[in-house]
Amino acid sequence: MGSTLWRSSINRRALLGTLAAVAILSTPLLPVSALAETPPATDPLPSWNDGPAKQAIMNFVKATTDQSSPDFVPPEARIATFDQDGTLWVEHPMYTQVEYCLERVPALVKAKPELVNVEPFKTVMSGDREAMAKLSTPDLEKILYATLTGMTVDAFSAEAAKWIATAKDGRWKRPYTELTYQPMQEVLSYLRAKGFKTYIVTGGGQDFVRTYSERVYGIPPEQVVGTAGGYMYSYDKDGKPILTKEPKLLLNDNDAGKPEGIHLMIGRRPIAAFGNSTGDQQMLEYTGAGDGARLEMLVLHDDPAREYAYGPAEGLPDTKVGTFTQALYDEAKKDGWTVVSMKNDWKRIFGFEGAP
Amino acid sequence: MGSTLWRSSINRRALLGTLAAVAILSTPLLPVSALAETPPATDPLPSWNDGPAKQAIMNFVKATTDQSSPDFVPPEARIATFDQDGTLWVEHPMYTQVEYCLERVPALVKAKPELVNVEPFKTVMSGDREAMAKLSTPDLEKILYATLTGMTVDAFSAEAAKWIATAKDGRWKRPYTELTYQPMQEVLSYLRAKGFKTYIVTGGGQDFVRTYSERVYGIPPEQVVGTAGGYMYSYDKDGKPILTKEPKLLLNDNDAGKPEGIHLMIGRRPIAAFGNSTGDQQMLEYTGAGDGARLEMLVLHDDPAREYAYGPAEGLPDTKVGTFTQALYDEAKKDGWTVVSMKNDWKRIFGFEGAP
Repeated sequence: MGSTLWRSSINRRALLGTLAAVAILSTPLLPVSALAETPPATDPLPSWNDGPAKQAIMNFVKATTDQSSPDFVPPEARIATFDQDGTLWVEHPMYTQVEYCLERVPALVKAKPELVNVEPFKTVMSGDREAMAKLSTPDLEKILYATLTGMTVDAFSAEAAKWIATAKDGRWKRPYTELTYQPMQEVLSYLRAKGFKTYIVTGGGQDFVRTYSERVYGIPPEQVVGTAGGYMYSYDKDGKPILTKEPKLLLNDNDAGKPEGIHLMIGRRPIAAFGNSTGDQQMLEYTGAGDGARLEMLVLHDDPAREYAYGPAEGLPDTKVGTFTQALYDEAKKDGWTVVSMKNDWKRIFGFEGAP
Repeated sequence: MGSTLWRSSINRRALLGTLAAVAILSTPLLPVSALAETPPATDPLPSWNDGPAKQAIMNFVKATTDQSSPDFVPPEARIATFDQDGTLWVEHPMYTQVEYCLERVPALVKAKPELVNVEPFKTVMSGDREAMAKLSTPDLEKILYATLTGMTVDAFSAEAAKWIATAKDGRWKRPYTELTYQPMQEVLSYLRAKGFKTYIVTGGGQDFVRTYSERVYGIPPEQVVGTAGGYMYSYDKDGKPILTKEPKLLLNDNDAGKPEGIHLMIGRRPIAAFGNSTGDQQMLEYTGAGDGARLEMLVLHDDPAREYAYGPAEGLPDTKVGTFTQALYDEAKKDGWTVVSMKNDWKRIFGFEGAP
């Protein structure tokens, strides 16, 4: 898809060139500069306010894709990586995938009734949201393993795809997949139109995100790097080969795991990376450590009216989900990363708000 | 690159269509059928003899890419996976990467002189090829870990790329990278021209193969799935982020590890798979277990004059490298996999032999 858009862009430029030549031939008195300086017909980032964040994106794309630029990067090396939760879509009050796992518990208990009185399943079955919010990390891990492993990859994908098609967020009463940030969708499309290959690099489950990434972000499954468990190849009772999701952690795609996962799955260093929390710090550092023009961006959630506001960096509450610490903020300033203020840089947050 | 070729093919077809229309307009007495039945201008597989193997490839591509076919597959799902050693290039008398590791031992011993009297390094330093050929698997693993881990991913890539650019095979006295099978190169190009995404799925080291895959096969690093170790993110003495190759096995991309690695790295089931040994069996089974048209091929090394002959399936010696067993042969027959005879199906083995 990236390639198609990039090509149309090239073709459009060629076409404009031809039209310009025709114009010059037919109206020899028209100054050439008037044609050459025609601005692009459409703004590729209409949901962004003019400002340093939007300018950083535009400058970076120009520097890396203009053949005459000293920072020109050939198309095959134009790799851009995006964290998902809090960077591409809403992560509050709970990661969408954790919501999925909690909602799978009743089916799990139905299949294994002995779990009904066992913690942490008992708490989840009680329906007490406050108690659930207080579950410890080991308890949450038990729920994740129990609901994300032990079935075939095909059975899991079918179940997750069914859920994500109908499940709704509590605040906006819309499918989670409509809660993607329109300005970031525009960045994804713009980069692909300029020959970039866009990747999701998420702490979320790779198999989970792959079920909707193409439809929601235009990112195919093979361009999703995420937390991954082991798989086991075997045969079912009819002798048909199956792959089963194993309760074993292969890649914890958070923190240092992000650059490690990027090398494992992509094998190239990104030239642009987008995140919103300490879990993205190492991915941005690794991206920045390469030669040539680089773009590192952090989304700051500072808009309680239109979305949420959290992160100690701006004196906002630390909610433990997507933590934007003061140290991360300081590193961003020191290393020249761009901090995106949702409140000031984004004209609208969601596509369903209508055109800006 | 795949996309480019595919597009040129489309454009060429469009061009031929236009030329045909012009011809019809200018010579109205010419029967239309004469134009419609014009065979393709060029054979996409010129190094293949006519026969069931070539026919199987042509039929599969037609079935999956012709919009009117009941087995049509949309471009994004056209995933084809290729084993490397013995399928895309020569694997005898020793895997190229093992050769690399053995040749790295002197530099290793220079850096750590205490190893010179420690086995298996002592045997390698003796230069005795026969003794080296008899090294046990645990001894070989020691050599692999010692020469493939403990350095940054960038240092490893630079070293491996330098070696592969000059190292030569003992029989043909040519760079290993010229010992790719021309008929398989044609299959790679043909599939890409038809919108397929081609992947290498190798038991060899992912980082090793990625250093030359684009140049040698037109396959970018992110489309190489291979045996992979762990990585560790840290900072060097100047505070620059580095990724170090760890002596830890993350994915053994052989046997059942191939479909497991395919799901981990690609997340889609291939519709075509190519191999040559028992290490590819599960990849072919997994490919075959999906719905719709499928292509599974096994290359049989039965040409001692032009390459090598090995594998008990044809009463040939079992060399333990790339084993084509009788059981694999029987499974191929039972499941409708195509066995490619190098001797009978291939007009030429290597590109340097010149046009057939």
